[in-house]
Amino acid sequence: MRRAIELAARGLGATSPNPVVGCVVLDPAGRPAGEGWHQRAGGPHAEVHALAAAGAAARGGTALVTLEPCDHTGRTGPCTRALIDAGVARVVYAVADPNGEAAGGAETLRAAGVEVEEGLLAAEAAAVNAPWLTSVRHGRPHVRWKYAATLDGRVAAADGTSRWITSSAARADVHRLRAASDAVLVGSGTARADDPHLAVRGVPAPRPPLRVVADTEAVAVRPGARVLDGAAPTLIAVADDVPAARTDRLRPGADVVRLPRAAAGRGLDIGALLAALYARDVRSVLLEGGPGLAGAFVAAGAVDEVVGYLAPALLGAGPHALADAGISTVAETLRLRVTDLVRVGPDVRITAVPESPGHPEASHAPQAPEEL
Amino acid sequence: MRRAIELAARGLGATSPNPVVGCVVLDPAGRPAGEGWHQRAGGPHAEVHALAAAGAAARGGTALVTLEPCDHTGRTGPCTRALIDAGVARVVYAVADPNGEAAGGAETLRAAGVEVEEGLLAAEAAAVNAPWLTSVRHGRPHVRWKYAATLDGRVAAADGTSRWITSSAARADVHRLRAASDAVLVGSGTARADDPHLAVRGVPAPRPPLRVVADTEAVAVRPGARVLDGAAPTLIAVADDVPAARTDRLRPGADVVRLPRAAAGRGLDIGALLAALYARDVRSVLLEGGPGLAGAFVAAGAVDEVVGYLAPALLGAGPHALADAGISTVAETLRLRVTDLVRVGPDVRITAVPESPGHPEASHAPQAPEEL
Repeated sequence: MRRAIELAARGLGATSPNPVVGCVVLDPAGRPAGEGWHQRAGGPHAEVHALAAAGAAARGGTALVTLEPCDHTGRTGPCTRALIDAGVARVVYAVADPNGEAAGGAETLRAAGVEVEEGLLAAEAAAVNAPWLTSVRHGRPHVRWKYAATLDGRVAAADGTSRWITSSAARADVHRLRAASDAVLVGSGTARADDPHLAVRGVPAPRPPLRVVADTEAVAVRPGARVLDGAAPTLIAVADDVPAARTDRLRPGADVVRLPRAAAGRGLDIGALLAALYARDVRSVLLEGGPGLAGAFVAAGAVDEVVGYLAPALLGAGPHALADAGISTVAETLRLRVTDLVRVGPDVRITAVPESPGHPEASHAPQAPEEL
Repeated sequence: MRRAIELAARGLGATSPNPVVGCVVLDPAGRPAGEGWHQRAGGPHAEVHALAAAGAAARGGTALVTLEPCDHTGRTGPCTRALIDAGVARVVYAVADPNGEAAGGAETLRAAGVEVEEGLLAAEAAAVNAPWLTSVRHGRPHVRWKYAATLDGRVAAADGTSRWITSSAARADVHRLRAASDAVLVGSGTARADDPHLAVRGVPAPRPPLRVVADTEAVAVRPGARVLDGAAPTLIAVADDVPAARTDRLRPGADVVRLPRAAAGRGLDIGALLAALYARDVRSVLLEGGPGLAGAFVAAGAVDEVVGYLAPALLGAGPHALADAGISTVAETLRLRVTDLVRVGPDVRITAVPESPGHPEASHAPQAPEEL
C-alpha cells in the first residue's frame, strides 16, 4: 500500500476533478505483478493501468488501492467491473470513497464474491488526497495559503521592495506547490505591485494551473499584464457591478467571472469565488497573497493548510503576511497544528493545518499572571 | 574534549564575568582520572577541580580543557601553576584565551616542559562560550534577542492581549534561557503593559539574572511593580535628565542608572546601556522586548543571536516582534543564518545569528523579473 500511495502522488496536479489514486496488483503468490496510477482526468483509472500491467497474473491475486474502487461509469467504465473481470480474489483499499456518485464499490465487489478490506494506511492515503477529500467534504476547493516572510513576519520592506526575501531554493519550492495545484490565486494588490506571471517554471507541471486574480474593481490587471500572456489559462474575478469596458479589454488573454462583493469589508465574496473555481473543476487552490486576500480567506474559514517560508532575516518594518482576518483578541487566534518543519536552502518551511474545532490547546488557556 | 564541553555548559549563567570552562584529566594510561568545571565566578577553575579529583593519577597524564589555561592570579591562582605542580605531561585545549590579561598560558606551560596542543573541537567549545567570547571581542555583553510570535509575526492581538500566544512548553524553555543569562532586559512598553516579574521559575538558576528595565522616562516601572519585589536584583535604566523624584521612589527595590538618550530616535543610547551592564559584570543579556527596544538593538548592530518561538497560529492584526530597526528597503535586510530549528511542544523554535559581514547570500541578489 505504501507503494500505491507513492504512485498516487505522481498524479498530483493532473487529475482534478478526480482524486489521485495508486494501485498495486499482486499475483496469487503475493508477488507484485503490476502497478499503475491515475494519470489525468479522463484517462484510465489506477486499477485499469495496474490490471493491464499484471495481465493474467491478476487472476486469483490481490489489488491494493489507495481509494475505494469506483462503481460508476463516467468517462471510463467502473473499476469494480474491471477488477471482477480480471478475476482478482481480494481488494484492499485505504480510504472509502466519500463521493456519493462513485461510492458503493466495496459492496459491488463483495456481491461478486471478491474479498474486500478497508483502512490499510488510511491516514497516509488520506494525506496524499487531502485536497480532493476536502473538496468533496466542503463542496469547494482545498485552499493552501503560501507566504514568504522574514522572521518578524514582513513580506516586503517599508518601501515595498520584496525581491527577494527568501532564497532561490524556497522560490523553486513554491513552483513545486504551484505544479501540484489546480489554480494559483492572488489579489489585486499583488497583481498591481508585482505584475506576477503565476506560471510554473523549473519543475514538471502535468497541467498548467489556472492563474486567477481576484481583481474586484477590474483595474489591477491591465492589458499587457504578464498573467495575460497565454502561458497558462487565466481567470480574472471581478465584482458583478464593474463596467463592461474594464473587463472587455482583458479578453482574449483571460476569462472573466463576475461575482458578488463581500457582504462586509472589501473585496469579493470568498464563498462565491471558491464556488466559481469549483465549477471550473478546480479542486486545489494555491493562495499566494497578498495579506488582505489571505485575511479574507482566514476570516471565511477557508484556509485548509498554511505553508510559510521564513527567511532568517529581519526587517522591522513593512507589510505583513496576513491582515484583516477579523481577529481582535488573543482568545480568537486561529490555532494551527504543525504538520511539517524543514529547512529549504537557508530558509525554513513550516506547514500547518487548522486545529480541529473543539480541540483547543489546553496549554494556551489563561494562567496565573505570575508566569511572565 | 566532548565531555569537557558538556561539563563547561553546566556553568552557563553562573560564571560571569568569567567564561565557562570544563576539564577532564586522564592518567598516563589515558583513562579518565578526574573532571571538573568552573562553577561560579570567584570559585576554583575547572582545572583545579579536575586535578583535585584526579589526585596522584594526574602525574604524567593529560589535561583536556575547553579554554587555554589561565596564567594570571585573580581571585584564584593561575591554572598553569596548578597543572605544572600536579605533574601533568600534556595539556590539550580547544580555544585560545582571547583575554589579554589571562592569556599566555600555553607559553608558560611549554616553558615548564609540558606538551601543549590547541584546537581540538574548537568550534564546539567556542559555541558553548559564545556569550563570553563575544563580550571579550566587542567589550560589551553578548545579546540574545528572544521573541514569541504567531506565524504572521504578531506578538499580541489587536487589543493588546498576548497571554498566551505560545505554549507552556515554549514559555518554560524561555526560563531556561533566562537561567543561562546574566541579565534579562525589557523596555518600558513591556514593563507598562505586562508588569513582568522577569525572574527564573521552574528551572535551576545558579545565580538569579539581573532584571533590567530600559525605562527612559522613569514612568513605566511604578512602586509596587513586580520587578521590584526582591526575588532577584533589579536595575532600572533611565535618561540622565529625568527628575530625581521619579527615580527615588524605585529604591530600594531597584538600582537606578542614568544614561544618555539615543542621539537619534527615542529611548536610551544602546551602547551606553550595554556599557553600564558590562560594568556590572554582565556578559550575556537576554533581550525580551518589546518591538521598539529590539529594533533599537538591531539598528545598533547589537543583536548577536535571535531566538524566535513561533506558535502555529494566525492573528492578522496586532503589534509585531520587531519595529523601527532602521531598515527601509529589502537590500538593507539584516540577514541571519539558522543555527538551530526544533519543535518545542506545539511550537517551533528558530535560532539564528547574523551573517558575517561580507558574506551575503548570493541567492538573494536581484534576479530577472520573470521569476515571480
